[in-house]
Order: sequence, then structure tokens, then C-alpha cells
Amino acid sequence: MDFYAEAIAQAKKLGGKIEIKSKIKIQDKEDLSIAYTPGVAGVSLEIAKDRSKVWDLTTKANSVAVVSDGSAVLGLGDIGPEAALPVMEGKCVLFKEFANVDAYPIVLNTKSVDEIVSTVSAIASGFGGINLEDISAPRCFEIEDSLQDLGIPVFHDDQHGTAIVVLAALLNSLKVVGKELDDIKVVIFGAGAAGLAVARIINPASIVLIDSKGPINSERKDLNDYKAEILAGENYLQASTLEEAFSGADVFIGVSGKGKIDQGLIKRMNKKPIIFALSNPDPEIMPEEAKKAGASIVATGRSDFPNQINNVLAFPGIFRGALDNKIKRIDTKIKIKAADALAGIVEKPTSEQILPSPFSKEVVKVVATAVRNYD
Amino acid sequence: MDFYAEAIAQAKKLGGKIEIKSKIKIQDKEDLSIAYTPGVAGVSLEIAKDRSKVWDLTTKANSVAVVSDGSAVLGLGDIGPEAALPVMEGKCVLFKEFANVDAYPIVLNTKSVDEIVSTVSAIASGFGGINLEDISAPRCFEIEDSLQDLGIPVFHDDQHGTAIVVLAALLNSLKVVGKELDDIKVVIFGAGAAGLAVARIINPASIVLIDSKGPINSERKDLNDYKAEILAGENYLQASTLEEAFSGADVFIGVSGKGKIDQGLIKRMNKKPIIFALSNPDPEIMPEEAKKAGASIVATGRSDFPNQINNVLAFPGIFRGALDNKIKRIDTKIKIKAADALAGIVEKPTSEQILPSPFSKEVVKVVATAVRNYD
Repeated sequence: MDFYAEAIAQAKKLGGKIEIKSKIKIQDKEDLSIAYTPGVAGVSLEIAKDRSKVWDLTTKANSVAVVSDGSAVLGLGDIGPEAALPVMEGKCVLFKEFANVDAYPIVLNTKSVDEIVSTVSAIASGFGGINLEDISAPRCFEIEDSLQDLGIPVFHDDQHGTAIVVLAALLNSLKVVGKELDDIKVVIFGAGAAGLAVARIINPASIVLIDSKGPINSERKDLNDYKAEILAGENYLQASTLEEAFSGADVFIGVSGKGKIDQGLIKRMNKKPIIFALSNPDPEIMPEEAKKAGASIVATGRSDFPNQINNVLAFPGIFRGALDNKIKRIDTKIKIKAADALAGIVEKPTSEQILPSPFSKEVVKVVATAVRNYD
Repeated sequence: MDFYAEAIAQAKKLGGKIEIKSKIKIQDKEDLSIAYTPGVAGVSLEIAKDRSKVWDLTTKANSVAVVSDGSAVLGLGDIGPEAALPVMEGKCVLFKEFANVDAYPIVLNTKSVDEIVSTVSAIASGFGGINLEDISAPRCFEIEDSLQDLGIPVFHDDQHGTAIVVLAALLNSLKVVGKELDDIKVVIFGAGAAGLAVARIINPASIVLIDSKGPINSERKDLNDYKAEILAGENYLQASTLEEAFSGADVFIGVSGKGKIDQGLIKRMNKKPIIFALSNPDPEIMPEEAKKAGASIVATGRSDFPNQINNVLAFPGIFRGALDNKIKRIDTKIKIKAADALAGIVEKPTSEQILPSPFSKEVVKVVATAVRNYD
């Protein structure tokens, strides 16, 4: 099936994938007087007296803004806010269909970090959460960091959604091959939003990080602060070449966007190698090739191969739980608990099934339950 | 009926008056592949190639942001973004129910003119129109003026929605009493957002404007630029006192928020005086009193008296027409045409019926048809 053509035809027919639904019919003056003036003034006064009532009396409690500047959309790069809009709408569809979250797309006509931060801060009062989406690295890190004190969760899905699902997949893969997280070497191939978030969450695994220039090591003079921070971590393994990076590695996690690896590199890995080749639509290596090179488990980002690693396993439940429990920040503890919970849904992981189906009703419920305050 | 209590009960029960509706069901991998990845990339690429296609392929074509900073909400004043949210939601309900426009509430946690302008500019790409709402004067003028080149209409409803409906009501009232717009004196009582917009639109009537300090005249040293501009107009009539202002006036338009007038002032007016006492919930003078003082026609903002002047007669049709015709600005010509069209719906106006019912199906259709490019 030509998914591009089908999607364009669907967009032409529907003119947008979401709409607003009023919960109230307005058929006479009385309806109008309750839903709008003068009645609505009563609701406003309740909130003016006690601002926290906005959570009980308005849409805030169930609403999420899906915010993008269109700078790193799917594998398409910097295509701008208008071209990003269909992706954000699609995300809003998934929020509603999977988790009954009312999400609305907000695309930003600016790439300035300061303007994005001030815009999101300005509009946050009306939302219960902010899903940042498809914002390029390293700007995404600074933007997200600057927005953590809004009183509602601000969660960059390209980083943390991916990291949570990767960690869940990794935990179950390790069960299959009989290894432990604190005793493995992981090659992270791609040092953008997803790569850096994965590097942070798979602690205490030993890691080596590779960007488009090669392995990150202390000889490199071109590292941004975020890469330098990973390099300084106590579980970081230096490597000078790709070959050295792959030697003895237990796990490969490809989040490069467009990079490729060959069978030779997989053959340098430890026994029972785990290969997550997650770039879309073209994985870093095709599953069949990886298997031939000795991979025990292969996962991709695609739905037409086994073991799809898809953010839709995380973000609906993450925000469902955050809204239900009025969580102010999705911290590392919550992310790890969510990954554990997601992994736990698969009772007996196998090399062909390390993750549950996104259509399993359990997924959102189980992930949402893990999103709570752990203090 | 206690509308406040009813509205609070409704808000508690519903937790917000609108929700997001997906036009698509996501039941299997194929649905996901069309509505989201990989298919959505096809839609994004179409728009990346030709940005104008955002109007055909996304929600933009039917969506309006209802934007408020909560600084002048109903008669409640500066109650902040959270307390403004129920009002904006109510407005979104009316947009959907009356005109099938998908409107979303955006409340702003800032009162800075510059920050409001930059925030609205930043989020505009995803919307087909911006309805500014309940922003206090004179900030509302500067904000609206600064946003006229976004390529989508930015319309402050407190100004122009009110002005359009007042002009329509005035045109039909003049038919009833047998007077002409270019031959009347109008007292505008209140020089905020609504008052100044009414003063601008009822040209060529002669006007005198009154604010909380009394009549605007060239002796006054405390006028902002917007009041000074009205004062400098060629149809402006100077007056030193309230009594002088009302003397020989044909029309009183009260948009003061909380002001009051007495029967003595009405008795100073010309024969067959027209009284629009529009402040809510307490009109500047009650209809019965105004009638006793000699008023031929009385209108208020309330639904429990005849001749309700209600913005809901204008804004749904204004935005329906603007979206359907991809109008970039709602200019004065369009506003006057819309008022003419609205007035024209009442075939034979009487002193008890100068405007159509907002529940008449014709209203949105007729107003929307008037909103087009007239060049």
C-alpha cells in the first residue's frame, strides 16, 4: 500500500484529522445563558477566587498542547510549521484514540529558543500538559529544560517517549538473551534528541555514543554541552573508531535518522547481539541482514517487521497518568517506572516479541498507573 | 433561574465544555500508518513543497484561536487567564454550534503588549483566524493593530463584534423612527474597546463620546491616543457636561460596563430617542424607566428583555465567511457590509424587534456571505 498517497487522499477528503466537539447543545436562550453569558461569569468567579479550581471546571484537566516549530519533523528535517501541522494533528488523533486525552496542535512560526520558551510559557495556563515534538537538537534540550517550572509537565516526546520505549524493549531483550543492564556495552548510533535521551536513561549500562563525525571521545573538539556531559559520565567507554566502538558491544541502538551500519560491525559485537535499528523509513540495517550477521534480536521503528519500537506505546499513557495525577514534571524516576511497567506487560518476551502491541488496551492503563509522584 | 449556579454545576459535571474529536478511528496498524507514520510524511511533503496547501490538507482552514489575557473578562475585570478560560470555552462552543467553526481557547499568562503580539504571531500558522477576546483597552487596540499582517484575520470581538451588531440595530431602529444615519446625534457612553469601535463604525453620524470622567472634549488633558483620534474626527460634537451631551441627541449607546444614566438625561434628547443600554448584567437604565422617559426604542444586552444586542449575531458568521473566503483582514468595509446584511434579515423592523434571533438559521449564512473581498 502506498501510505503517502493514502494519507494525502485522507487529508484532502477530511481537511484536517481533528475537530472541536461541543459537549453542550445550544438550542435556546436558556442554553446560551448557562453555557455563555450570564452563567459563565459564575464559573469564572469560582476560579478567580481559587485558581486551582481551573482543574475541576475547565478543559485544562484533560488537555495537552502538541507543540512543534517544525525544525526536525520525522525524517524530513526543517520543513516549517505549516508542513509540521499534519504530523501534530496525527499525534492529537493518537492522544484521543489511545488515551482519551484532548490534545491540540500548536505549530510555531519561530525557531528562536527564547521565543519558543516565552510562547509556551504564555499559553500554558490553559493546558494540563505540553508535548514538545519534532524540535531539533540541541535547541530541544535548552527549550525543555527552561520549561520545567510551569507547574504542568513539559515532555519532549522525541527524547523521552523514545527513551522509555527503548528502555522497555531493552529490558525485555536482556531477559531473552540472559544479560543484565549493569553488565552490558551499548553503542548508541545518533546523538540527537533521541540518542542523548537514551544515553541518559539506560544507566547503569556502559555506553559509547556515535554521531555523524564518529565516536564521541575526549579527542573531539566539536562537542556541544550535551554530548560533552554524556562523555563525562562514569559509564562512558571511549573509542576512536567505529570498529573499536562495536567491539564487544552487546547492544546497538540506531537513532541516527539516516545513518547505515554493515554486517561487519555486527560481527565485531559480543555474542547474542541485540540490534535496534530505529531510523525511519530506512533502518540502519535491514532485519534480515542483521540476523544473518548473527543478531539474536532485531527491532525497528517500522510496523512491517516484528518488534516495532514506537512512541505510541509511551506518550498516551504518560500524559494520561500525568493528567490524572496532576504531575508537575515527568522526572527520570517516572520515566524508568513507566519503562518497567511497559516491559512488564509482555509476560514471556521472545526474540520476536519484546514489546506489547500498541493496540493492547492494557498499555495505556499500565503506563498511566506508573506515572505518579514517587516522593 | 440562577444561571451562575447552573453554569457551575454544568462545569463541574462536564469538566470543560469542549473536547477534541478525531475524525479517524485508529484500530489497526494500517489506520496508524495512514493517519500517522509513515503516511503523514506524504502530507507534510506536499505542504513543504507548496505552503498554501496547508489550507487544503489540515485543520487550519476551519480553525480559530480564541485568545484572551483575562484582563477585561465580561464585567468582571482583570481576573487572569485561568478564570477567563471558561468564557473562552463558551465562545468556542458558540463557534461550533452556530457556525461549525473549530475554535480553541488560548489563555495568556502575560499582559505585556509585546509578549501578546509575539505569542499570537508565533502560533498563528496553525489557525485560519484569531478572535481576540476580553483584552482591556487601550492595550487591545495596539495589540490588534500590530497583528493585521499575519495573513489571517485578527478580530477583537469586544470591539468589532459589538460595533457590527450595534450598527445593524441602529440601522433598523432608524427605519422605525424615520431618521437617517447622516442626520443624527449619537451619545456614546463608555470609551473602552466597544465604545471606540462603535464611534468609528457609525460614521457619518455625529457623535459625542463620554468616559468615566465626562464628555471627551478639547479641554481634556487626560486622553489616550485613541480617544484623541475620535475627538479629532469631523463628525465629533464637543460638549462640556453630560446635560449638554444629551441635548438634542437622537441615540444613546451605553457600553460603559458599570455606568448609569437617569430619566432626566433622556428627556433632554431629541424626539423619538433610541436607547441602547448595553452594559451587563445591569443596563445603564432599565427598559421600563427609559420608556417612561420617552424612549421610542430600547435595546439591552440581556436576553430577558426585547431587542437583545448580542455579539453572537456577528462573530460566528464573520469567521465562517472569513474562513470560507480566506479573508486576510476584516476591514471596515466588511464590517459595514456585515452590519447591513444582519439588519436586512429583519424585513419589517418594529420598536420591539430590531434584530433577528441568534437562533435563526439565516443569521450565520447571511453574515458569512457579506464577508468577502470587496476590492
